[in-house]
Amino acid sequence: MTDQTGRKAALIIGAGDATGAAIARRFARGGYAACVTRRSADKLEGLVEAIRAEGGEAHGFAADARKEDDVVALVERIEREVGPIEVMVFNIGANVPASILEETARKYFKIWEMACFSAFLSGREVARRMVERQRGTIIFTGATASLRGSANFAAFSGAKHALRALAQSMARELQPKNIHVAHVVIDGAIDTDFIRESFPERYALKDQDGILNPDHIAENYWHLHTQPRDAWTHELDLRPWTERW
Amino acid sequence: MTDQTGRKAALIIGAGDATGAAIARRFARGGYAACVTRRSADKLEGLVEAIRAEGGEAHGFAADARKEDDVVALVERIEREVGPIEVMVFNIGANVPASILEETARKYFKIWEMACFSAFLSGREVARRMVERQRGTIIFTGATASLRGSANFAAFSGAKHALRALAQSMARELQPKNIHVAHVVIDGAIDTDFIRESFPERYALKDQDGILNPDHIAENYWHLHTQPRDAWTHELDLRPWTERW
Amino acid sequence: MTDQTGRKAALIIGAGDATGAAIARRFARGGYAACVTRRSADKLEGLVEAIRAEGGEAHGFAADARKEDDVVALVERIEREVGPIEVMVFNIGANVPASILEETARKYFKIWEMACFSAFLSGREVARRMVERQRGTIIFTGATASLRGSANFAAFSGAKHALRALAQSMARELQPKNIHVAHVVIDGAIDTDFIRESFPERYALKDQDGILNPDHIAENYWHLHTQPRDAWTHELDLRPWTERW
Amino acid sequence: MTDQTGRKAALIIGAGDATGAAIARRFARGGYAACVTRRSADKLEGLVEAIRAEGGEAHGFAADARKEDDVVALVERIEREVGPIEVMVFNIGANVPASILEETARKYFKIWEMACFSAFLSGREVARRMVERQRGTIIFTGATASLRGSANFAAFSGAKHALRALAQSMARELQPKNIHVAHVVIDGAIDTDFIRESFPERYALKDQDGILNPDHIAENYWHLHTQPRDAWTHELDLRPWTERW
Repeated sequence: MTDQTGRKAALIIGAGDATGAAIARRFARGGYAACVTRRSADKLEGLVEAIRAEGGEAHGFAADARKEDDVVALVERIEREVGPIEVMVFNIGANVPASILEETARKYFKIWEMACFSAFLSGREVARRMVERQRGTIIFTGATASLRGSANFAAFSGAKHALRALAQSMARELQPKNIHVAHVVIDGAIDTDFIRESFPERYALKDQDGILNPDHIAENYWHLHTQPRDAWTHELDLRPWTERW
Repeated sequence: MTDQTGRKAALIIGAGDATGAAIARRFARGGYAACVTRRSADKLEGLVEAIRAEGGEAHGFAADARKEDDVVALVERIEREVGPIEVMVFNIGANVPASILEETARKYFKIWEMACFSAFLSGREVARRMVERQRGTIIFTGATASLRGSANFAAFSGAKHALRALAQSMARELQPKNIHVAHVVIDGAIDTDFIRESFPERYALKDQDGILNPDHIAENYWHLHTQPRDAWTHELDLRPWTERW
Repeated sequence: MTDQTGRKAALIIGAGDATGAAIARRFARGGYAACVTRRSADKLEGLVEAIRAEGGEAHGFAADARKEDDVVALVERIEREVGPIEVMVFNIGANVPASILEETARKYFKIWEMACFSAFLSGREVARRMVERQRGTIIFTGATASLRGSANFAAFSGAKHALRALAQSMARELQPKNIHVAHVVIDGAIDTDFIRESFPERYALKDQDGILNPDHIAENYWHLHTQPRDAWTHELDLRPWTERW
Repeated sequence: MTDQTGRKAALIIGAGDATGAAIARRFARGGYAACVTRRSADKLEGLVEAIRAEGGEAHGFAADARKEDDVVALVERIEREVGPIEVMVFNIGANVPASILEETARKYFKIWEMACFSAFLSGREVARRMVERQRGTIIFTGATASLRGSANFAAFSGAKHALRALAQSMARELQPKNIHVAHVVIDGAIDTDFIRESFPERYALKDQDGILNPDHIAENYWHLHTQPRDAWTHELDLRPWTERW
């Protein structure tokens, strides 16, 4: 499904980190116009330029995915200016551990708002378009906390459990309409600036492939998107060979 | 653990329905001062009087469990006026199914706020007191949707999945402090006014024990509370013998 | 349901350890004729005498639960000589960890035969009687390994996963016939001779309630058996407050 | 890792059906010598010839995977005559539903022996070789019954649950040795002779991609095998877009 100009869009919500950027690049290489978002668009310039330098199409959008108006406007604009959204990847996380005794109401809410409510808004808006065309792929990025509520992770695991429920519920409702909804459980540290700076001893595992390469994550998202509809995956896990689970 | 007057409190958040009422009565019969809450206290009068008529102690409190100030004040007042909270049962649900395509942001938020955020606020406030005394029981009421995201249940299953993550996370953190946190998966219709009025054909199963009796649910909560600490249950399911699962 | 003499039987398959013995004593106190089995009956004499000394009824049976003929004969004899089997508890385990590289075919088979095949034989034979009477309770004892395949536990977790599948399948088939089938996940060391002798540092946790008291396990089995049929539990976990999970 | 002749083997245990055959063809196209087994080798001739006709390398072996001697000899012979086994796919199933009341001991055993014990034997033998070389991929084919014990599926779900436990246990033990063990949950009918003949109305869904194409299953196995080790999947599901779950 493409528009008259033949363009089709892949929307990556939360392209501010290495994972979102790698996914955007992968879908651009696959022929999609990569539409990348984060709260401030100027930080996306480097990514957009990098994709274009590789010969791909990319567009950066400032959008706060927690705001319904922003999300509605974003989807409308992409569909109008770029092309039909064939793929949506939701990739916003927000993990700040805390003892339940010290967790604040504000932070508990914000983590849910970023990691789950934003996903609901984006997923719903994109699904409304995909349903009309009876095609599309929606992928939500999960984590270890999607499956397990560990001590000090009440907020993050709550948001991630809720996100997984959203993915399952959408998959079951939209599947008969030819829309593929999948959930990816990323179980391990990713090769990002955040890990390099905050967990240097963890980052040192990179030499032995002990942290996830964003490009390899992206390849799995591409694999999910290209599965024929007689053999769809709704959940898969990704972890380094060194990761205990 | 009791105060000087020997009183100890069981706090039931969300005692507006038959289940919360039955749990309150059960703990009152077990010697606890049943502290029952809902948004408007006048609707609790009947329950409070019924418990007192049976010789138990009961107190009704108006509190909006979604409001941090309300919850903080509620816990403070009970601890000061009634006695140490030895048991907290969180029993607020809010299920209004909808297609993901038609779910509103407002409703998606409200369902989470009622069924999950309130639980976080109550659980945290009560845990802060229990941790000082190194004792207590906290029970969260779950549902089928706690384990499965069905079509049209994105909001409810999201909230219930998040609630389960909260229960697990709190259990793992507070267990070494001698606080028992448990999650109950109620899988089936309960004998309530709501079911009788809204699902009469379902309600007709009552004659053959096909819907859950609130008193039997309450007995299981009491069982959880009275488990010795060498054999704690963190999750159990309850369903009628006629329920498919 | 009792026979003409009013007797009703509780069959405990695998009563050789402290857990099986405690369960037998609990059901005897509840008015059941405790029928206890292990491979050699003489080792059951102490248990049978202890129950009788407490005023209960008990019978010891030698039976190899892995042998179909033994199991068929056992159930037939109890039904004929003692009374209708109202409760069956399957309590045989057999955990000998090994690296997958060193696990022998003989041991892999034997662990499954003891912990799963025996359960199938006993469960089927007892179910055939219960179905005729449209009543009864069957409880299978599981373990941490029922839910997770850990390194070096291929044989044991395989048997325990299969046992859980048996419990679920039987529960779903027999539930509409008023037969309650439940699975108990015991997650922690139990106060047994085996633990005292083989894991003394673990056993030392007993002083702080860090290992499961068999009587407390038994009380939960009794609780499951006495649940009214509108509120049946199909799975619960039991673990000490000190156990990480 | 290849031998002196540069050959590397992919062993498909249970290549008698369309799925095993498609997996063999896929790995042959990827440059592996496809070593296919079933109980009688003559039935493999067509597959071996078809792979060779496509320019691939294939070898058929008669082996009863339930017999330890057969499995030991099979692995030894392939390693000696063909090359190091880099991939092993276990693909034997055996589902014959029955009420628990009518399930025979013989059939309950045989289903476990085929679907689980054979997997243990093959997995162990192949792992012993892979561990020496510190590389390899082992994939086990699961089913819906791997995750759920449905009524009348006690035997099959027992075997499949045990198989999943084997996969998890092996994954956790062998992962630090650079061996990738994965479990695939196939949830839906596959385009096989069996489905066409036994479930014609189900087979009719093929026109709308409602049954799994074996080649698409095979592509996912290939994807798992080629994942870089910093991003390994340990479990994924595959189901048609029309399948309820």
